Amino acid sequence: MSLKLKNARRIEGLDSNMWVEFTKLAADPSVVNLGQGLPDISPPIHVKEELSKVAAIDGMNQYTRGFGHPSLVTALSCLYEKFYPNKINPNKEILVTVGAYGSLFSAIQGLIDEGDEVIIIMPFFDCYEPMVRMVGATPVFIPLRSKPVDGKKWSSSDWTLDPQELASKFSSKTKAIIVNTPHNPMGKVYTKEELQVIADLCIKYDTLCISDEVYEWLVYTGNKHFKIATFPGMWERTITIGSAGKTFSVTGWKLGWSIGPSYLIKHLQTVQQNTIYTCATPLQEALAQAFWIDIKRMDDPECYFNSLPKELEVKRDRMVRLLESVGLRPIVPDGGYFIIADVSLLDADLSEMNNNEPYDYKFVKWMTKNKKLSAIPVSAFCNSEAKLQFEKFVRFCFIKKDSTLDAAEEIFKAWKNQKS
Amino acid sequence: MSLKLKNARRIEGLDSNMWVEFTKLAADPSVVNLGQGLPDISPPIHVKEELSKVAAIDGMNQYTRGFGHPSLVTALSCLYEKFYPNKINPNKEILVTVGAYGSLFSAIQGLIDEGDEVIIIMPFFDCYEPMVRMVGATPVFIPLRSKPVDGKKWSSSDWTLDPQELASKFSSKTKAIIVNTPHNPMGKVYTKEELQVIADLCIKYDTLCISDEVYEWLVYTGNKHFKIATFPGMWERTITIGSAGKTFSVTGWKLGWSIGPSYLIKHLQTVQQNTIYTCATPLQEALAQAFWIDIKRMDDPECYFNSLPKELEVKRDRMVRLLESVGLRPIVPDGGYFIIADVSLLDADLSEMNNNEPYDYKFVKWMTKNKKLSAIPVSAFCNSEAKLQFEKFVRFCFIKKDSTLDAAEEIFKAWKNQKS
Ligand SMILES: Cc1ncc(COP(=O)(O)O)c(C=O)c1O
Ligand SMILES: Cc1ncc(COP(=O)(O)O)c(C=O)c1O
Repeated sequence: MSLKLKNARRIEGLDSNMWVEFTKLAADPSVVNLGQGLPDISPPIHVKEELSKVAAIDGMNQYTRGFGHPSLVTALSCLYEKFYPNKINPNKEILVTVGAYGSLFSAIQGLIDEGDEVIIIMPFFDCYEPMVRMVGATPVFIPLRSKPVDGKKWSSSDWTLDPQELASKFSSKTKAIIVNTPHNPMGKVYTKEELQVIADLCIKYDTLCISDEVYEWLVYTGNKHFKIATFPGMWERTITIGSAGKTFSVTGWKLGWSIGPSYLIKHLQTVQQNTIYTCATPLQEALAQAFWIDIKRMDDPECYFNSLPKELEVKRDRMVRLLESVGLRPIVPDGGYFIIADVSLLDADLSEMNNNEPYDYKFVKWMTKNKKLSAIPVSAFCNSEAKLQFEKFVRFCFIKKDSTLDAAEEIFKAWKNQKS
Repeated sequence: MSLKLKNARRIEGLDSNMWVEFTKLAADPSVVNLGQGLPDISPPIHVKEELSKVAAIDGMNQYTRGFGHPSLVTALSCLYEKFYPNKINPNKEILVTVGAYGSLFSAIQGLIDEGDEVIIIMPFFDCYEPMVRMVGATPVFIPLRSKPVDGKKWSSSDWTLDPQELASKFSSKTKAIIVNTPHNPMGKVYTKEELQVIADLCIKYDTLCISDEVYEWLVYTGNKHFKIATFPGMWERTITIGSAGKTFSVTGWKLGWSIGPSYLIKHLQTVQQNTIYTCATPLQEALAQAFWIDIKRMDDPECYFNSLPKELEVKRDRMVRLLESVGLRPIVPDGGYFIIADVSLLDADLSEMNNNEPYDYKFVKWMTKNKKLSAIPVSAFCNSEAKLQFEKFVRFCFIKKDSTLDAAEEIFKAWKNQKS
């Protein structure tokens, strides 16, 4: 083929994407899908209703302000001001994007140069690595490591960063670190002390912090979500990212936001105006209305920010029991809506599978085909050299209605009976 | 400020954006806004209704296929197959994006390398230049030039490319040319012969063609829209771009699409999966349903693809009369929903305005402030060196309800009376 018809160098090697692969597998309607983080519970009625209403308003179907629909940035600043010591300027310190994905992209494109280093904690939400590579920067990886737990319940809080190891990754070349709390796929909720270690290093090395907090409302009993941007010396160097899809269980809306100081946000705005220019107006207006409803009842149990984690904690506990009942050892998550388990204990016969793939890839493909249950391999959240460290783990998504979890339970039970 | 808190080099100098500036100006509710291409007519009822309906369906609020919602890519392939000699594979030859903007972005990022040259025809839709600069490529500009028309009506078809001049812009470094027909802001609809000249050069120099056809349905009596991708030898090197916002007068939906051969589209898909991953599901599903309704009645006058240009042609003619009645010479557009006029004839006293700006910038700001009528300066659609060539022109948008055009008429009449 003519050279002129080839891809640009910046995307060389970035074409493979596990979501494309595993979503296709799970598309078979007979498969119980605990793979992609795709709620099958109903989104809150008020959120759907607001969109239905807004669609009927002519003006709400036309372009709005590029950096964020006025009513939405106002709602966001009002909401988040409750959690920050500082005021948040809706026009200069917030950018509305196409999902948290769009926020990650504009932060990385707007702030990271070719040759910079970016620290990424493993496992990591899979787009971090290709986004960093696309700008010609070098990802520097550090794994979460588990403490020995001998016999006790295994918890996501047993997985921590080694402070010395983390310090060794920072240097004058470090431009940024990407932090994700609550964490996908581990469910880890970073403690104040853990975030302080990261903050101290960011300040010492004068680096940016990109804080992906899309699961900020989803923390379970005994845990608390902290925003690293509220730590002393951190607001000025942190971009904090949120997602409507995760906040209101409407992943299909693809709206997200970045919050940070105006001199950083303005560079993300520059990227946005040369990428997509503006996000969908009807979704932004409906989201703003939905936010106002929940902002007004934040102390009530019915507020979705309070009711969803309660609902999910029950599902998490059910998933823990379910996985244990078939002899697996799950890592109990403190937040988010995923749970990881070591599946090597199931001793599945994977001899029919392609041997060039990590264990968990083979396992998930085998399970989807033979057990009609899908999940996501955890090594997909690791860089290529580190896949072996996590290849025994598989991630299950539990933001699912009871009938879906029932179906998964049936599958696991039959599997267990077959074995014994 | 610390160097680490600076923007990445790739966006250096790309922060100014005239939409941000002029949209803010026009936000004053007392201003009659003929600026941004923002329909204030009602979008078709079936389009709004589909969105209201879809919002109520739980599953339609969750993630869908990243490269395009299945029902939407099916509808698009069915629609466009009517205009291409070849079949169009919905999964491999179509990418759904965040507006036509997103299609332009992913085509340029996926296919254009640092150091490449990209030919851009002036005036141009303003994002072409910064998007090309953001990838480190060099835009090579060529202006449309007007034939002498002495006294006759001035038409967008009087503005043409000089074939010799165009040929002189092509070289082995040329990676692509961006073509826009029907043209924003000129309203020019390229003839078959004009497109053939471009196609011949693309084939001779083995270059890509990015064909922005967002106004494809909006051509007026006596004109016909041609797709350069259907010319012999062109499908294999052309990305054709469309927009839901322009097709259905819902600019706020921000959905667009790229169509082309799979070996090109796959690179745009790679960009998308590392940028935003997927577009909003409810909007995509509603758009698919809307398309089916109009695909089934394409030969009927009520089909929106037929009714909208009829409706707009009346508005165009009214705008021509209106502009002429105050002594202006409009360039009558053959397509699109913009009309350009030389405003220097109005002899506005701009002495109070900032002298460092092109005439049309000053004029529009002055008119918005003093006459409460807004428009867009045409030099905003030119590169910095060529602004002088077009600074006497101002663009008016006429996809406006009658009451808005009435208000504009009042303003022009009062203006005229004041002068005489
Ligand atoms: C940690 C994390 N960040 C970002 C995203 C992307 O969110 P959005 O759908 O809003 O783009 C996800 C989605 O799964 C996620 O888990
Ligand atoms: C020529 C042209 N291309 C692309 C676009 C962007 O379209 P969208 O809103 O679908 O991103 C516009 C919008 O005005 C345009 O005029």
